[in-house]
Amino acid sequence: MNNNKNGLLFVISGPSGAGKGTVVNELLKTEELELSISATTRKPRPEDRDGINYFFMDEEKFKGMIENDQFFEYAMFGGNYYGTPKQYVLDRLSEGKDVILEIEVQGALQVKSAVPEAVLIFVMPQTLTELGSRLKGRATESAEQIEKRMERAAEEVEYISAYDYIVINDKVDDTVEKLKAIISSERAKAINNRNIIKKFKGEI
Amino acid sequence: MNNNKNGLLFVISGPSGAGKGTVVNELLKTEELELSISATTRKPRPEDRDGINYFFMDEEKFKGMIENDQFFEYAMFGGNYYGTPKQYVLDRLSEGKDVILEIEVQGALQVKSAVPEAVLIFVMPQTLTELGSRLKGRATESAEQIEKRMERAAEEVEYISAYDYIVINDKVDDTVEKLKAIISSERAKAINNRNIIKKFKGEI
Repeated sequence: MNNNKNGLLFVISGPSGAGKGTVVNELLKTEELELSISATTRKPRPEDRDGINYFFMDEEKFKGMIENDQFFEYAMFGGNYYGTPKQYVLDRLSEGKDVILEIEVQGALQVKSAVPEAVLIFVMPQTLTELGSRLKGRATESAEQIEKRMERAAEEVEYISAYDYIVINDKVDDTVEKLKAIISSERAKAINNRNIIKKFKGEI
Repeated sequence: MNNNKNGLLFVISGPSGAGKGTVVNELLKTEELELSISATTRKPRPEDRDGINYFFMDEEKFKGMIENDQFFEYAMFGGNYYGTPKQYVLDRLSEGKDVILEIEVQGALQVKSAVPEAVLIFVMPQTLTELGSRLKGRATESAEQIEKRMERAAEEVEYISAYDYIVINDKVDDTVEKLKAIISSERAKAINNRNIIKKFKGEI
């Protein structure tokens, strides 16, 4: 399907707790997609395989990659660096393979600025849509707590505007179906089928 | 899903013989879509119901609608006028209903110029993609016949560039699934879910 053209990059993102990981694992079972692989400085566990679960590297190499702008984004958790290497994703795309990347919200926007044709999908929990009215409706939280939650919701909303698709993750199965629909329709976009048009024009 | 916003307009088009009618009928069985209704000056048959199969009208009324630019497109076949009235479609859209419209290629472009947010889907037969190489590969047609076919293919290609999606109609079931995917993903587009964003912003 993707002969003679770049693959598509699907970026699954959204607030933590939205069930993104589950949904991506389900997609990988049936869809022809390459999963982006993260780099980390944490020590490999016995079951880890380098280049499959993670790219394992020492801190010196990781910092060198930061300096050379080789990550879409990176962060430190528990004393270890984690990052999303650009080259692995870009290589798969140039091979014509479609890639899926699960990443937190700010990282997704950095991917978009590096790969403008990336398809950004915001997976949000059902509860988030109702957050505002629910918070106001119940009296269990202080005005200050509500204010903080609303501020965070306001941040999320600004991010949503930069996304291509919004999927409410109510039931996992429904969400997976919606994501499959997005993948299928992106593949059917005329702009992603210029090879068909080119083929015609080349022959005429 | 479409509360407080306009419906989506899906325009199914492509060369005749691509199986558009079959595919649209299948879609209507399961999808929440309103089918656009054509107007005609032909006499109703016993089984016809006005406002269901067609809007039946006399030639004077039809010509009046032409003069008042009330058709997306119209044509005459077998001594009768046929046309696609704009108002019926626009009314359904403003009610928040998604509408599907099956129309020939030039008509689709006229719809797009009247409703720029219309989603244009080019359904093409598998044979068309191979038309060029097949024509050249076989020796049964004269150079002049091949030239004519290629000219027509060239016209089709120019139209394809204006479309949002290209679907190769190989098997009807697969095509219906692809169209459902397009409908589902268009409904999930962030631009078509501004109400979710607005709702948030209104509450904050």
